[in-house]
Amino acid sequence: MRNCILASTSTVHGQTFLQYLMPQLSEFFKSTKELLFIPFARPSGISYQDYTSIVAKAMAPLDINVKGIHNFTSPSEAIDQAEGIFIGGGNTFVLLKTLHELELLDVIRKAVHKGVPFLGTSAGSNVCGPTICTTNDMPIVYPPSFEALCLIPFQINPHYIDADASSTHMGETRETRLNEYHHYNATPVLCLREGSYIEIKGSNVILRGTLSAPLFRQGNPAIELESGSDLNNI
Amino acid sequence: MRNCILASTSTVHGQTFLQYLMPQLSEFFKSTKELLFIPFARPSGISYQDYTSIVAKAMAPLDINVKGIHNFTSPSEAIDQAEGIFIGGGNTFVLLKTLHELELLDVIRKAVHKGVPFLGTSAGSNVCGPTICTTNDMPIVYPPSFEALCLIPFQINPHYIDADASSTHMGETRETRLNEYHHYNATPVLCLREGSYIEIKGSNVILRGTLSAPLFRQGNPAIELESGSDLNNI
Repeated sequence: MRNCILASTSTVHGQTFLQYLMPQLSEFFKSTKELLFIPFARPSGISYQDYTSIVAKAMAPLDINVKGIHNFTSPSEAIDQAEGIFIGGGNTFVLLKTLHELELLDVIRKAVHKGVPFLGTSAGSNVCGPTICTTNDMPIVYPPSFEALCLIPFQINPHYIDADASSTHMGETRETRLNEYHHYNATPVLCLREGSYIEIKGSNVILRGTLSAPLFRQGNPAIELESGSDLNNI
Repeated sequence: MRNCILASTSTVHGQTFLQYLMPQLSEFFKSTKELLFIPFARPSGISYQDYTSIVAKAMAPLDINVKGIHNFTSPSEAIDQAEGIFIGGGNTFVLLKTLHELELLDVIRKAVHKGVPFLGTSAGSNVCGPTICTTNDMPIVYPPSFEALCLIPFQINPHYIDADASSTHMGETRETRLNEYHHYNATPVLCLREGSYIEIKGSNVILRGTLSAPLFRQGNPAIELESGSDLNNI
């Protein structure tokens, strides 16, 4: 009985950390008194403790106590015993490398499948697909594999941004990059715009938020899925 | 006696492939009757042959015959015997993975050090640093290592784009990404804006083009280097 929220971002423009998700998180974490936070993605190189403090502050109005996984002697046991898990955003390569090195992928996967509420944002959502091959992040460290949690059978591309037709910049657009991905890989890619998220409840996988989401499939033009769409069998 | 041009891009906005570099390439390849093209980065998934045809068309006015490395039985021998080498842009991960799989890194490095004129653009320049850890590309395939040609002792970040202060997009800026890189790596990063390139002649390494280039060094604020700057000892 999986119970997950996989969000494009922790923060929408002009709001505080997780503010836009608070109504959902209040319900989602209603049985969670203590939340285990995994700060390994270290946005802007922030320390584990400082990152955990930001999450603790955001969760305080929900009466949820937040503990960083770095404060436990055994990260694996911390996950086994967690009442709720949150993997925050930052650099996806740094995050995945640390998860591999600490051998935490299997234990997180098991926790999610036994129903522990799991929240991922940005890089924390990226690692929920089969691989991190559709991250937007810079490969600042080399992970022992690109294989990730595979909580869902499709790839996520968070922070999706539409091409700016007026741009004179010659770097690839996001769409070009995702089409290149499909020259080498068959897995569909769901792109989340800021504020969009995936809700997983048992076998139901639904697109949430106010915006539509582009879906890229190998050999097909991208289509837009409306909020509320069933994401099983995409 | 190294002799290299490492450019941010093959194409500046509104121009044809390599057009902006033609005056330099005319001099640079003046002793090259046949140019060996390495099309492994496959921009937009283009075939090796189609990519090679684009280069052949661009080089025709210089009376240079272009051969794709995929047309040789032994890619390694092709490099050994080349009068000039060009690695084109596309996806840096795809390019580096192929170079590793075909065991071509050493042989290219040796050719460059014996003085064979070498041109890299975009991904083809990215692989000239010690690693590809500062590429902007999507990691659509997993290379056996991020280690690259190391023709220069610093990293290149091509297609550099300054942060847009008016943007409401919450993805990281290029500057944020490069500062994150320096939380884990000590190597300086030279950022090339479109139209900038690095000229290597023997032991001289000079910034060329009309624009300045940001230099990121661990523990220091980024500085702007003017065109013409000496890039030794940055």
